[in-house]
Amino acid sequence: MTTNDSIQVSVLGLGAMGSALAGALVKTGYATTVWNRSPGKADDLVAQGAKVAATAGDAVRAGQLVIVCLLDHASVHEVLDPLSNELAGRTLINVTTTSPAQSRELAAWVAHAGGAYLDGGIMAVPHMIGRPEASILYSGSADVFHQYKPLLDLWGTSTYFGEDAGLASLYDLALLAGMYVMFAGFLHGAAMVAPAGVTAGEFATMATPWLTAMTGAFQGFAAVIDGGDYTVEGQQSLEFSDLGDLLAASSAQGISTEVVAMVQRLIQRQIDAGHGEEGFARIIESIKQAT
Amino acid sequence: MTTNDSIQVSVLGLGAMGSALAGALVKTGYATTVWNRSPGKADDLVAQGAKVAATAGDAVRAGQLVIVCLLDHASVHEVLDPLSNELAGRTLINVTTTSPAQSRELAAWVAHAGGAYLDGGIMAVPHMIGRPEASILYSGSADVFHQYKPLLDLWGTSTYFGEDAGLASLYDLALLAGMYVMFAGFLHGAAMVAPAGVTAGEFATMATPWLTAMTGAFQGFAAVIDGGDYTVEGQQSLEFSDLGDLLAASSAQGISTEVVAMVQRLIQRQIDAGHGEEGFARIIESIKQAT
Ligand SMILES: NC(=O)c1ccc[n+]([C@@H]2O[C@H](COP(=O)([O-])OP(=O)(O)OC[C@H]3O[C@@H](n4cnc5c(N)ncnc54)[C@H](OP(=O)(O)O)[C@@H]3O)[C@@H](O)[C@H]2O)c1
Ligand SMILES: NC(=O)c1ccc[n+]([C@@H]2O[C@H](COP(=O)([O-])OP(=O)(O)OC[C@H]3O[C@@H](n4cnc5c(N)ncnc54)[C@H](OP(=O)(O)O)[C@@H]3O)[C@@H](O)[C@H]2O)c1
Repeated sequence: MTTNDSIQVSVLGLGAMGSALAGALVKTGYATTVWNRSPGKADDLVAQGAKVAATAGDAVRAGQLVIVCLLDHASVHEVLDPLSNELAGRTLINVTTTSPAQSRELAAWVAHAGGAYLDGGIMAVPHMIGRPEASILYSGSADVFHQYKPLLDLWGTSTYFGEDAGLASLYDLALLAGMYVMFAGFLHGAAMVAPAGVTAGEFATMATPWLTAMTGAFQGFAAVIDGGDYTVEGQQSLEFSDLGDLLAASSAQGISTEVVAMVQRLIQRQIDAGHGEEGFARIIESIKQAT
Repeated sequence: MTTNDSIQVSVLGLGAMGSALAGALVKTGYATTVWNRSPGKADDLVAQGAKVAATAGDAVRAGQLVIVCLLDHASVHEVLDPLSNELAGRTLINVTTTSPAQSRELAAWVAHAGGAYLDGGIMAVPHMIGRPEASILYSGSADVFHQYKPLLDLWGTSTYFGEDAGLASLYDLALLAGMYVMFAGFLHGAAMVAPAGVTAGEFATMATPWLTAMTGAFQGFAAVIDGGDYTVEGQQSLEFSDLGDLLAASSAQGISTEVVAMVQRLIQRQIDAGHGEEGFARIIESIKQAT
């Protein structure tokens, strides 16, 4: 008997991610009940010691802590709406991907039903679960986060942002935005060198350490932004950051310029507004203003 | 007498970067002659042991190896055109920022004058010179690169790409493109979370390790691109990569969607062309086609 046996956990949803999360709990000795809409998905977990519930209601009743990992916001309501009377005194940790507004709605709905709610955003793919590289973001009830932190830490690196249940989703989306845009930048670079016979692999060998090193600039930009003064000495100015050479070289390679032109537009709007001598970080002002 | 004394090096241009490059040579014991258009910039270097030349011609005649670090392509021609008769048998390493076409033009011009030419692109700021984090890219004469590698390695990490003198500039621009686009992605994320009261510094604390980890995806994209088959199993599909949620969340935060919309357009063009089930790396095809 480990101390984990004293917490009864249920997991709703055994897709690729739900199975990985439940697997980490079962392996560590948590008394785990699992449920999935379609049958058959629990077999492996049962072989490892999980109990399977016949209905979502049985699963919820079996757990003081209920982990929800379904497809989306609508499926969470579809499963939980008929069970609102069962939620009083229970804790829900919902790691289904939802928008900030949807996370807030669920938090309010669970609170109304008398339960406690923590929202999670998983920045990892299933095979990473259980390793520190799996970053999982949480917001909502601080009490829930602190009480269950040892359990959450089994899945990866847990970070808590605050009581606003929408914050984890918002961070999740903001980090994904950064990732997709970075990917486009990498692929633009690979497209530029390709006509010269450089393979994408050769370019990646240079781009991986280069962009890794350049993430080192983020805290400097942040210090300027949070300081509220874009005229601080020692910054690269917007005028100096003119991307005309980059656009010309891209055109000369016969490729689309739209990836770099996006950045140039952000720069140009600040120059046009008279801020050309201020720091590059000021392009956040171009983004903050909806066009 | 160190063995470095047997190589006579001249440095043309003592701006912020030229001074840093010359300083690293003088410190290591190379017999170094320096020249700058405006007087006074050589004083510190002379105090450390450099000789100063009164004219660019004197500097070129003093060096078997001539390092050129001027403002741009035009200034290189302005300084060297009157000296074309002095270049036969000498070696020029030009680290002035130029476009790929300008680098190729200079290589051909120097070859015509009977000299050897290596082009360099400096991916660092002056205070980084002398440290391995200073990445300097070279292309042009392989003989020159290999002969002078011990000297070049004093400045940072030297990488050679091939005989095409334009390659270093092209790589330089492609890596800068990746950097500027990544910066825009980071700043978009910071703008998304700002209305929720998250500081740019707090966001940078999450975004720095996250985007660093995500550079790990580049080699996987490259393998797919170089393999020429975007249908390989195990990739995230273009349809799955729909950024509608990200765009909606950005709008809901009241900020511009143009940074993310750029990526969404690249995705959409491939989906529209019938490739929605293929891997995300395929967006490079949207970039390779000039619009
Ligand atoms: N996989 C990843 O890499 C990853 C990464 C980060 C976040 N996430 C998030 O984690 C959540 C689960 O992802 P996943 O990869 O596990 O997805 P998945 O493999 O597609 O599984 C979806 C799960 O949701 C269930 N489901 C869907 N609609 C339902 C409904 N109306 N009623 C009841 N159950 C329903 C499915 O049950 P059936 O088996 O009956 O269809 C299945 O258990 C998603 O929100 C996803 O965005 C996933
Ligand atoms: N600084 C960086 O962070 C950095 C990074 C990567 C690459 N680079 C590249 O390195 C090169 C030099 O940059 P830098 O930072 O040293 O620039 P800088 O401080 O502005 O110095 C420019 C140098 O070029 C000379 N020059 C300009 N026009 C000239 C002309 N027509 N004839 C003769 N000399 C002329 C200047 O001489 P005067 O003193 O007489 O004006 C000065 O020595 C540039 O191509 C730059 O793009 C710089």
